[in-house]
Amino acid sequence: MSEARGRRRSGGGRAGRQSSRVNPVASTPAYITRKLKPFEVLDEAALEQIEANAETILSEMGIEFRDDPEALEILQKAGATVEGELVKFPRGMCREIIQKSAPAEYTQHARNPAKNLQIGGNNTVFVPGYGCPFVRDLDGGRRYATIEDFQNFVKLAYMSPYMHHSGGTICEPVDVPVEVRHLDMLYSHMKYSDKAFMGSVTAPERAQDTVDMAKIVFGEDFVKNNTVTTSLINANSPMTFDDTMLGAAKVYSRNNQACIIAPFILAGAMSPVTSAGTLAQILAEVLAGMCFVQLYAPGAPCIFGTFASSISMQSGAPTFGTPEPSLVTYGAAQLARRLGVPFRSGGSLPGSKIPDAQAAYESANTLNSTVMAGVNFVLHSAGWMEGGLVMDYEKFMMDLDQLGMQHTLTQGVDMSENGQAMDAIREVGPGNHYLGCAHTQANFQTAFYMSDLADNNSFEQWEEDGSMDMRQRANLQWKKKLGEYQAPELDPAIDEALQAFIAKRKSELSGTGDF
Amino acid sequence: MSEARGRRRSGGGRAGRQSSRVNPVASTPAYITRKLKPFEVLDEAALEQIEANAETILSEMGIEFRDDPEALEILQKAGATVEGELVKFPRGMCREIIQKSAPAEYTQHARNPAKNLQIGGNNTVFVPGYGCPFVRDLDGGRRYATIEDFQNFVKLAYMSPYMHHSGGTICEPVDVPVEVRHLDMLYSHMKYSDKAFMGSVTAPERAQDTVDMAKIVFGEDFVKNNTVTTSLINANSPMTFDDTMLGAAKVYSRNNQACIIAPFILAGAMSPVTSAGTLAQILAEVLAGMCFVQLYAPGAPCIFGTFASSISMQSGAPTFGTPEPSLVTYGAAQLARRLGVPFRSGGSLPGSKIPDAQAAYESANTLNSTVMAGVNFVLHSAGWMEGGLVMDYEKFMMDLDQLGMQHTLTQGVDMSENGQAMDAIREVGPGNHYLGCAHTQANFQTAFYMSDLADNNSFEQWEEDGSMDMRQRANLQWKKKLGEYQAPELDPAIDEALQAFIAKRKSELSGTGDF
Repeated sequence: MSEARGRRRSGGGRAGRQSSRVNPVASTPAYITRKLKPFEVLDEAALEQIEANAETILSEMGIEFRDDPEALEILQKAGATVEGELVKFPRGMCREIIQKSAPAEYTQHARNPAKNLQIGGNNTVFVPGYGCPFVRDLDGGRRYATIEDFQNFVKLAYMSPYMHHSGGTICEPVDVPVEVRHLDMLYSHMKYSDKAFMGSVTAPERAQDTVDMAKIVFGEDFVKNNTVTTSLINANSPMTFDDTMLGAAKVYSRNNQACIIAPFILAGAMSPVTSAGTLAQILAEVLAGMCFVQLYAPGAPCIFGTFASSISMQSGAPTFGTPEPSLVTYGAAQLARRLGVPFRSGGSLPGSKIPDAQAAYESANTLNSTVMAGVNFVLHSAGWMEGGLVMDYEKFMMDLDQLGMQHTLTQGVDMSENGQAMDAIREVGPGNHYLGCAHTQANFQTAFYMSDLADNNSFEQWEEDGSMDMRQRANLQWKKKLGEYQAPELDPAIDEALQAFIAKRKSELSGTGDF
Repeated sequence: MSEARGRRRSGGGRAGRQSSRVNPVASTPAYITRKLKPFEVLDEAALEQIEANAETILSEMGIEFRDDPEALEILQKAGATVEGELVKFPRGMCREIIQKSAPAEYTQHARNPAKNLQIGGNNTVFVPGYGCPFVRDLDGGRRYATIEDFQNFVKLAYMSPYMHHSGGTICEPVDVPVEVRHLDMLYSHMKYSDKAFMGSVTAPERAQDTVDMAKIVFGEDFVKNNTVTTSLINANSPMTFDDTMLGAAKVYSRNNQACIIAPFILAGAMSPVTSAGTLAQILAEVLAGMCFVQLYAPGAPCIFGTFASSISMQSGAPTFGTPEPSLVTYGAAQLARRLGVPFRSGGSLPGSKIPDAQAAYESANTLNSTVMAGVNFVLHSAGWMEGGLVMDYEKFMMDLDQLGMQHTLTQGVDMSENGQAMDAIREVGPGNHYLGCAHTQANFQTAFYMSDLADNNSFEQWEEDGSMDMRQRANLQWKKKLGEYQAPELDPAIDEALQAFIAKRKSELSGTGDF
């Protein structure tokens, strides 16, 4: 009764104001189109020098393509010199081949067309963390991930207007045998979310399973003509590609599906300790990888990727949120724009074991430079912790909140008449306040990004509420969200077909692991 | 014995590598000279529009100068229209007067000349938090600040190579009567640090005491001809200056000491809810204040200041680390550069009650935009918490670490031959690692910013070390630092003269408070 009354009254008063802002992001777009120009750290001379150095690496030092005679043959036929498995590219060859056929942008389709993503240009797409063997939450601590954890993160990503993509191997569900794990992960993305997803890359057959399952969801013809997956092809830096990654890249690219060619760099170990040296090596590796993809399947969408951090010179341990990787991200984004292809890097990348101040500093430092650099595909946007070993429930919620802020920041300063607010200044005048003025009232619903995790109450109120830190509030939040989760509709016929496919593949694959 | 042996062996092995990096910042400069260009969010048309709007505010709506007939007379004589206490400035008047005499840069001298600061241009100076009535540490919790706390923060700032300035009212030592408090604060800066400091602004007589004490330290003639203090003159936004602040500004500027003219803005309360509206109002207020200072004391150093954050539209509470204030900081920095004067804004500004993830996200978001905006004088760089109510010991140490990272980031990408590292790439080649290569060895001491608070160890090692979060590590760190503190030398004759001055002033002032 009182609830009903409360509801009826919700048009007015403080409750009304609150409810009118319960969902301030009803109009949040499926992805960000940035209005701010990217921040740049390299001038023209520096860019040309790094590009020249990359060509020297490609032409004089070479890139290894391991255990893949087909790749060697294709590259040789196109003009490269092959010495054993070492491929040397004449200066300019890779760039020319890439620029001839690689698209500057592409659409990654989601099964809900309202959530289709434009990858490249001024667009930024946030994607969950990827590849973590462990999960952590405040109640259960650190433990191996399960398929239930995997599905939980798919659901939390689905429910957030600030997470644009469902991701890929968010965490490794180790309770599912490795040879069939990809099937359950893919099904989870398809069933529990309607956002775009990434494909399996751990074996060419798993990439093919990804394509086959996508055909069930999107239709065979649609997948032939459209990109519905984006998948992560890592280079074995320095200057090496292996047959597993090349095999997956072949499956995806010949099916017109997108690949990210991404050197995985901890500078000081997999690249020089300097930023300019690291950038030249990254560019060389990406040029070689993208060149192969464009030769193999001209026109297949392909992202210039990097994952770059540094190591501790004391212990050799990876370090995150430090300044040098930010410089590399800014520089690599410039190199990708000059090449004319979409760019993947960055994210929220803490090394900290728990979502404490260290984790947040590291995350904010990497996320701010990522967004300011103009990264298009932001893998590891949320939840990724401990240098990628742990997907953390509370941290996932914190990061979503930060991603929300980037939606506002990237839109820059509104210079419309309403944005200029001269009427408000005229109305209020010296010494008064703007709280109740007409302009404030009119902009009430859209003014200021509203965090749903930050506590802005008085100290006294905060104490009365239990003196919780952000981690404790995030703990309550993800449980509440999962409790409220409702699956997006999926055509029962498609669901059945997916399950039949999975059952068939599981019977074929079971016991063929463990690899 | 074993300790002595350990010391003798410190040239080699892992201990040797560690000790050779114990002070990686031996060559840290007294302030930052940025090599990166500032990030800009407003194009030419937007800048011109905001400048035109500021002129409309100045000419049509006016700025109040309260309880200061002298100021009104000076402004009227210079061409403004005075209606009661409301001053209207003809379009262009303020800008013209400021640009005629306000210096683009100035040197703030420290009593240790090696720590002199260049304020303006491409330089960034970090200054501790300011004005907090409370302090907090992990052991003692939240409590009113004392003079001992004040001195502790002066000492911690003195010991950090990343903190360039000793600050002003870091916290309010409420155990000292308010009418003599400024004397003890000033003495603390002069005695326990040799870095530059800020003056008292809470009454014109206290500003005069600041100048008089500075003359004891630097010599009377030196102070006449040089700037040795920078002090904070807040506007009572919207569009108001009061006689207290104007009185302090007069004392400082006629003594050739620097003032920051700083609108204090919580957008939505003291300015419109939009960034463009807030920027126009800030510019109008600063133009009016700086114009007055330049008329009163032509050529006196003067900083374009802002403190801008937003409020919660639900509760009216101030919010920090949100995107809109970052846009205001970027835009205001552009306006200051066009005016041709130094700029103060930003810092590490959390609203959180404790140094948790919320605090770190908020700090990193404000600090990153501050540094990327090209702010010259960064008040509130460390320790400031709970929207300015609390100076936090652990947070102070965390922020120092973050300031250190900015020293590296702002230097951009090293494009020297060593930076390009082509020899390293040639030496290592495909599939190998860079850990032991000649280039890595040669750059060991300077490669990568090394945090002294982040834990980058393995999860197992971190657990073995007590599973500490960053706050616990910072707690150990500040206590260790204070234990190691050694005061910089101060000529005993100067010390005696300062103490005699303070004793005299205390006998004159005691009991004249409480205001």
